[in-house]
Amino acid sequence: MSEPIHAKFLPVIEDALREHWNDALAQSPADLKEMVAYHMGWQGPGTTGKRLRPIIILLVVDACGRDWIHALPAAVAVEYLHNFSLIHDDIQDVSRQRHGADTLWVRWGIPQAINTGDLMFTLAYAALLNSREYYPAAIVDDLLQVFTQTCLRLTEGQHLDMLFEKQESLTDSDYLNMAGGKTAALLGCCTAMGAILGSMTHKQVESLKAFGVNLGLAFQIQDDILGIWGEQAMTGKSSTSDLASGKKSLPIIHALNSSPAFKTAWQTDHSSPEAIKQLLVLFEQTDSHAYAQSMVDTYTQAALSALNDAFQSDPAAVKPLESLATQLLKRKL
Amino acid sequence: MSEPIHAKFLPVIEDALREHWNDALAQSPADLKEMVAYHMGWQGPGTTGKRLRPIIILLVVDACGRDWIHALPAAVAVEYLHNFSLIHDDIQDVSRQRHGADTLWVRWGIPQAINTGDLMFTLAYAALLNSREYYPAAIVDDLLQVFTQTCLRLTEGQHLDMLFEKQESLTDSDYLNMAGGKTAALLGCCTAMGAILGSMTHKQVESLKAFGVNLGLAFQIQDDILGIWGEQAMTGKSSTSDLASGKKSLPIIHALNSSPAFKTAWQTDHSSPEAIKQLLVLFEQTDSHAYAQSMVDTYTQAALSALNDAFQSDPAAVKPLESLATQLLKRKL
Repeated sequence: MSEPIHAKFLPVIEDALREHWNDALAQSPADLKEMVAYHMGWQGPGTTGKRLRPIIILLVVDACGRDWIHALPAAVAVEYLHNFSLIHDDIQDVSRQRHGADTLWVRWGIPQAINTGDLMFTLAYAALLNSREYYPAAIVDDLLQVFTQTCLRLTEGQHLDMLFEKQESLTDSDYLNMAGGKTAALLGCCTAMGAILGSMTHKQVESLKAFGVNLGLAFQIQDDILGIWGEQAMTGKSSTSDLASGKKSLPIIHALNSSPAFKTAWQTDHSSPEAIKQLLVLFEQTDSHAYAQSMVDTYTQAALSALNDAFQSDPAAVKPLESLATQLLKRKL
Repeated sequence: MSEPIHAKFLPVIEDALREHWNDALAQSPADLKEMVAYHMGWQGPGTTGKRLRPIIILLVVDACGRDWIHALPAAVAVEYLHNFSLIHDDIQDVSRQRHGADTLWVRWGIPQAINTGDLMFTLAYAALLNSREYYPAAIVDDLLQVFTQTCLRLTEGQHLDMLFEKQESLTDSDYLNMAGGKTAALLGCCTAMGAILGSMTHKQVESLKAFGVNLGLAFQIQDDILGIWGEQAMTGKSSTSDLASGKKSLPIIHALNSSPAFKTAWQTDHSSPEAIKQLLVLFEQTDSHAYAQSMVDTYTQAALSALNDAFQSDPAAVKPLESLATQLLKRKL
């Protein structure tokens, strides 16, 4: 099998991240610099993330026929933004492990981890402002607007996610509103920023943003399906099932709203291995699995259709992005 | 006594803050919007802050002979930035009360409070970007650079502050490095941004920045003095003394380094009322009080000298800023 199209970007992204980290924190306390390096997977036992978000920006700029090297500051910015949100999420969700290592708050305590998250948020803006080196002020202003609106959506999504944990009854639209503010908002930000840097028209920017948002929703719902019926969830320990964690994912919300039997069982016990086995049987009597799968298909189609809209005048340009979307949904990335 | 010069700004700042909050969060979850309003003192039992930072920006722009109304987006931005840092500080310091009310994390829990802090950080950038309505791109770009560098300094200062709590031996320069990244960095950001918006030369911007930074250091060290020898600390309960909290303030660091007797006593017990009484006696045998006071005077003089440098061609313009500095150091603001 040939090398995936985005393989060429990875080492360049990693170098750009490390270079920015090194320059921006040249005068900073050594411990603080180390905390960022630890979370990014450059020091300590952890591995680096997939760098999916910067890859998407660079792929879009490349597809627009522009020099993707100039988009590196924006690519670095979205990776920092993603990692800032992971650091704070891990505290909020009491997650102790990420990328094969203790999370930042486990290693350095909650107060320092909150602060390092804030630093990474700042570094995201610092990196984005470096786009001025290659682009006119109007482009950078557009980037800043999209980026800042995305940060707003991310905090809204995170707020709802935490609120929903405690909320008895939820609808599909509650879920979509929440999910739209998380992965979907950030992927939409990446594709929109790539389009802006690719000098696309306003209409094309909107289409590419829709590509990212819909791809993000498809990805998120597929994640929900794997969280219940994925190999790990089905065959592994109960702790790998979203049922056990009480996560309000789309299939669960749908089953709770459509099957009183499922609701009663779920409310009684959803975390013991026996309860999970029983809930999986009750799931079979609902159409929740098929419903969630149909939502994945719907959002995937919407994503690909928006992608084709954006590149009507250059259909060949969609290929690498189409291929990325496919790999992403097949969990091969 | 006549009304202080900045009294005219206060209602306008408050209106601008509320209007931005209302517009920016028009589509946001109601709870999230309420959390911001609660922290800002618009809902619930709490009072609003002094809005010192936006006042400083507007005073500087006014002193430069420019329309301060146009500086409101930047003024709103620094007030959000300050409040974002308070929300996260309160979690980090386990502070339960602020402005006469429960802190945000006490009221809504740590996870939601972290997220609302992140939202306020985002709102700061959103407000700052609104400066584009009144100023050319180059000015807004300068603002964004100064603002982002300040955020970086703030996280460095906060990192050091938390690190120092656990660190046995500290020097004056450790202290100044930490304090320089907190109040001083933010006041320097306000005066520099005001100067940029006031179309000052690069040299004048630097002088006004030095005015803010030095004023911030003087203010911080005076706060340290009041934390030990202020009326509240001396006559009130031991909990109002910085000795009791174990805070590594400048007079304490100085006494620890210059008096072995003080160090031994402090390390044995510094929080019981008897220990505080004894430490105050030992303090009299050091020159730490006088030393800290001389530092306040030095930084105050440096601040006023930088202020005069900035307005060499228009000496009358310094009056309102000089008056603000005096009020601030006398704790009448």
